[in-house]
Amino acid sequence: MLVQKYKDMLSGKSVIRQLSEFAAARGKEIGYENVFDYSLGNPSVPVPKEFTDSMISMLSTRESSKLHGYSPSLGITGVREAIAASLERRFAIPYRKEHIFMASGAAGALAHAFRLVTVPGDEILTFAPFFPEYHPYVDLTGAVLKVVPPDTESFQINFEAFEEMLTKKVMAVLINTPNNPSGIVYSTGTLKRLADILREKSVKYGHNIYLISDEPYREIVFEGVDSPCVSRFYDNTIMCYSYSKSLSLPGERIGYVAVNPACKDAEDMINMCGQISRGIGHNCPPSIIQLAVAQVADKTADLSVYETNMNILYKELVKLGFTCVKPGGTFYIFPKALEEDAKLFSQKALKYDLILVPGDTFGAPGYFRMAYCIDTEKVERSLAALRKFVECEYGK
Amino acid sequence: MLVQKYKDMLSGKSVIRQLSEFAAARGKEIGYENVFDYSLGNPSVPVPKEFTDSMISMLSTRESSKLHGYSPSLGITGVREAIAASLERRFAIPYRKEHIFMASGAAGALAHAFRLVTVPGDEILTFAPFFPEYHPYVDLTGAVLKVVPPDTESFQINFEAFEEMLTKKVMAVLINTPNNPSGIVYSTGTLKRLADILREKSVKYGHNIYLISDEPYREIVFEGVDSPCVSRFYDNTIMCYSYSKSLSLPGERIGYVAVNPACKDAEDMINMCGQISRGIGHNCPPSIIQLAVAQVADKTADLSVYETNMNILYKELVKLGFTCVKPGGTFYIFPKALEEDAKLFSQKALKYDLILVPGDTFGAPGYFRMAYCIDTEKVERSLAALRKFVECEYGK
Repeated sequence: MLVQKYKDMLSGKSVIRQLSEFAAARGKEIGYENVFDYSLGNPSVPVPKEFTDSMISMLSTRESSKLHGYSPSLGITGVREAIAASLERRFAIPYRKEHIFMASGAAGALAHAFRLVTVPGDEILTFAPFFPEYHPYVDLTGAVLKVVPPDTESFQINFEAFEEMLTKKVMAVLINTPNNPSGIVYSTGTLKRLADILREKSVKYGHNIYLISDEPYREIVFEGVDSPCVSRFYDNTIMCYSYSKSLSLPGERIGYVAVNPACKDAEDMINMCGQISRGIGHNCPPSIIQLAVAQVADKTADLSVYETNMNILYKELVKLGFTCVKPGGTFYIFPKALEEDAKLFSQKALKYDLILVPGDTFGAPGYFRMAYCIDTEKVERSLAALRKFVECEYGK
Repeated sequence: MLVQKYKDMLSGKSVIRQLSEFAAARGKEIGYENVFDYSLGNPSVPVPKEFTDSMISMLSTRESSKLHGYSPSLGITGVREAIAASLERRFAIPYRKEHIFMASGAAGALAHAFRLVTVPGDEILTFAPFFPEYHPYVDLTGAVLKVVPPDTESFQINFEAFEEMLTKKVMAVLINTPNNPSGIVYSTGTLKRLADILREKSVKYGHNIYLISDEPYREIVFEGVDSPCVSRFYDNTIMCYSYSKSLSLPGERIGYVAVNPACKDAEDMINMCGQISRGIGHNCPPSIIQLAVAQVADKTADLSVYETNMNILYKELVKLGFTCVKPGGTFYIFPKALEEDAKLFSQKALKYDLILVPGDTFGAPGYFRMAYCIDTEKVERSLAALRKFVECEYGK
């Protein structure tokens, strides 16, 4: 018999997917260049040339059966060394290869992190607004994801609600900074206070509370924004990284788990990741992609377009009277809708070929997300549609 | 707190890994070319040129952010179509893209197959000798792997023991043909009888018993060997395929699940795989590798060396008095050891720089595995060591 829980999931369709399907269909009618599709977080800038060159060079010169051979289950040793060295250079934390586990993107990294520190029934806390895939990622392990309501003033952490929800059942806290969907970067103050609470409660409850830090947007931070390294604040931090956004290659499924060297069991935890892999069919990310990212460990794609787009949109949104916290990074912005029901708001926007995602599934009803990883030229053209939408529907 | 079950696994070290570490260390002493390392199933032949050419061509000509963009979670549509068409051409079964789910190698494919049809506590049966990783693959899902003892005459199926173990708790039967470690290919007769029993017991127990067919060695079949397509015999077959061996690229983690179109819920099952992925961090195999294998869907590496090696080894082993079923495919052979304890036998072989893996972990104590995916020249040089070993230790 087929397993019912997965069968049941087939009927639920993600709002984002529905919207992006609408955008594709509408694009066939009027030309996709005329649909202002802010639904999908797909990086739009070119992959660094050094990555492509490195791939071609390896394919042209190396012995094929060696190049494409098995990776050790923790990742290729030299690749783990290169990443550890890069992290040490950038964040002055003494990472070594023993603290690095290569994973197939952030999803792969998180799948290992959750299984490292929770068993079915344990709780993981995260903070709204949050990436909605965290629900299946966590819930299907048997652990329970609970969502702390947002601080809508700043989209930093609602500490009052957090402390209330941080019970003895909580084994891990999951954060995502820079944040999808708010674009906010957690400040030094936020991370200090978070770490203090986690230390205090770990002692009180007699077990470590791990901080799982999902950082795929780490390299997309805008000018002048305080963007501290999460692992510097709290020893028991499990960093989950993906190159999807920084190198613009989300399809190649490459990232890593980096356990803070200050974490007492760091090396065991990395070795345990290799065991977890056996149960979830992970094995290791593709060998050639591992080797190629190691060549560009300190590089990123040219990510400046995201800041340009953000500035254009933020300025216009504020001018149009939207309440909006200015993003510190990512390629998302998360303004308040002009009516209470953001789903209705997004529905009305479709008439103007504006694809906006309501914030309900992100745990922040009444807000909406725009993913501005599109051409600046299109962002600029979208402003007229945005103005018309606001004027016609809300009389502003 | 760290999860104990994974921590406990750290102390267990695989016999194969220990042997291959011994081989590497010994290689440093005497030169690796002088160690007759038959421990690891790593393909040794070059990747087809068409694969490499296709990779370089895509990297050189396509827009990078599109080439490396997200794959849909079921796999890239055109890739699924190409694979379905190839399967239809080769096996005359009407596969369509709706029956294909792209997975990161056979391990990824199996991880989905097990979760499709079992919940914790359900049983999966497999047949000795078997790939030892099946244990963590299955056991860590919460299902229970039970192993039917071998038919050591032929290494086909021990049907008497099978029928006894095929209780109502069994939701799936897992086979691997051509087989690691025996090299045996299940005959038409074996598959017919297996299918008859599964149909009969499905009716009797009132639930489908699925046949999960792990086929990474499908393309490595030797001359004149009857090598029927498993899915032709039984509607409820879930084929798990990997290109690791056929294209010689195990590090690139590419394979698929193909559900038999005759299976009533085939399309739902493929869609369910997409949901299972969300819980295990799978997402999809690397985009560029998907695209490249679709270009060579009907090709293989030059696999003929494996048959050459098999013939050399088989002839010598028989001459030396080993009891040995002649392999029909793969790059393994699985003779009976010359003393009851195959671990002792393998231990003694190390003195002659012969790395042989005892059959205990494969569920067939008293036998040993040789993985002859090495250069023919080395196989030939190993014969003297083999003769010396047998003569000195067993006086033959």
